[in-house]
Amino acid sequence: MNYRAFHKLSYGLYVIASEHEGEKVGYIGNTAFQITSNPSKIAISSHKNNYSTQKILDSKRFSLSVLKKEVETSLIGKFGFMSGSEIDKFQGVETKTAKTGAPIVLDSCVAWFDCQVLESVDVGSHMLIIAEVVDGELISNEEPLTYDYYHKKYKMLAPQNAPTYIERDKLGDEPEAEPVTEKAEEPATEDESGDGIFTCTICGYQYDPEEGDPTVGIPPGTPWEDVPEEYKCPICNASKDYFKKTS
Amino acid sequence: MNYRAFHKLSYGLYVIASEHEGEKVGYIGNTAFQITSNPSKIAISSHKNNYSTQKILDSKRFSLSVLKKEVETSLIGKFGFMSGSEIDKFQGVETKTAKTGAPIVLDSCVAWFDCQVLESVDVGSHMLIIAEVVDGELISNEEPLTYDYYHKKYKMLAPQNAPTYIERDKLGDEPEAEPVTEKAEEPATEDESGDGIFTCTICGYQYDPEEGDPTVGIPPGTPWEDVPEEYKCPICNASKDYFKKTS
Repeated sequence: MNYRAFHKLSYGLYVIASEHEGEKVGYIGNTAFQITSNPSKIAISSHKNNYSTQKILDSKRFSLSVLKKEVETSLIGKFGFMSGSEIDKFQGVETKTAKTGAPIVLDSCVAWFDCQVLESVDVGSHMLIIAEVVDGELISNEEPLTYDYYHKKYKMLAPQNAPTYIERDKLGDEPEAEPVTEKAEEPATEDESGDGIFTCTICGYQYDPEEGDPTVGIPPGTPWEDVPEEYKCPICNASKDYFKKTS
Repeated sequence: MNYRAFHKLSYGLYVIASEHEGEKVGYIGNTAFQITSNPSKIAISSHKNNYSTQKILDSKRFSLSVLKKEVETSLIGKFGFMSGSEIDKFQGVETKTAKTGAPIVLDSCVAWFDCQVLESVDVGSHMLIIAEVVDGELISNEEPLTYDYYHKKYKMLAPQNAPTYIERDKLGDEPEAEPVTEKAEEPATEDESGDGIFTCTICGYQYDPEEGDPTVGIPPGTPWEDVPEEYKCPICNASKDYFKKTS
């Protein structure tokens, strides 16, 4: 099995949001697709460890916001890599309430769907959730974000809870795909010296030299300039280039 | 509900093939996605009227070939719009046999997966089929075909059995999306005069002036040049530009 074959499957990128007993939840997902047209039904695959999953199953509703190609990356960081138990993901984010009662995230959104859960299938690590689309709107004619574009632009892997996550050792030594022609904004490289705190511009993770990064064996007291070039953000897998000195 | 919102969902395009009791079947599908990563599972949504669906359920196996961006359109016509009861779709197509015994279509393919069916869910018009990926290979680093690119390039709608099919009257009067910058090969426009037979270069449908097209009220005896400009292929929805005089 060559796991790189999975990189040839195409996906979009979506914010999936719900609300249960007054608590709003949401995450970034790529595995959403229409499964019937009359009536319109959508299926999503959601990790059991994902805090939102049980809320969606309990409330039986979710919204699906289709992200635009040039998405606000802080939205990805917030909904894709942070936990709702740590931050209020919805603070500062424009939303409206759907017919089902689910919150719809409107930031960086080209279209949205309001979905009523019909049934769910336990497929192992994930729940496959089947829903009827009860409402939907087109917000903008901008191009939607694709997983492929995002992956190549930010050189990122899928988060561990994504159905498309592949462990690095399964990918072997073959080279990564070429990045897309349209480059990301030039990552900040100025003033990389010193021993200040460096923050991941994708997900907001902060590297503090006093603490190092024990998850990958970088001992406390290691300044940023001594962190190996192949270092990846422990939260979102962004490369070292995407860290910026913040203090 | 604005049904144009559904056009913002992203998909690839795949050949899904199987074999049951010596009979090979296959069709073009866009609704295939990975639903878990360990072990790797894929779900597809397949119309109950699709001849291949029951064969996949009976044989409990299918292959998924990821098509390349510049796909051979005859492959789309053959597997996407013709019935296996009318033609041998596999004639002249390069295949190999997967571990499960399913035939893998290698023409225009950048990667393939060999899938063992685990379960299926009746979701109305379609069956949602869940399978474990038992083998997979990357054939080429070429870009995969996306449904969006194909739709814009050939100005086509999804076939009626696709989960993403939308009736024209649901789309209202809003304009279609802009076509992609990379244009299709210039459609054949030379020698459009006369009353010969014109063939759809996408799916092979033949317009015969002696018969007209009673499905949309074009009476027998109407030469091609008198067929309205907004005419669409009754099989695959390709516009008039994609018809070529063949006799």
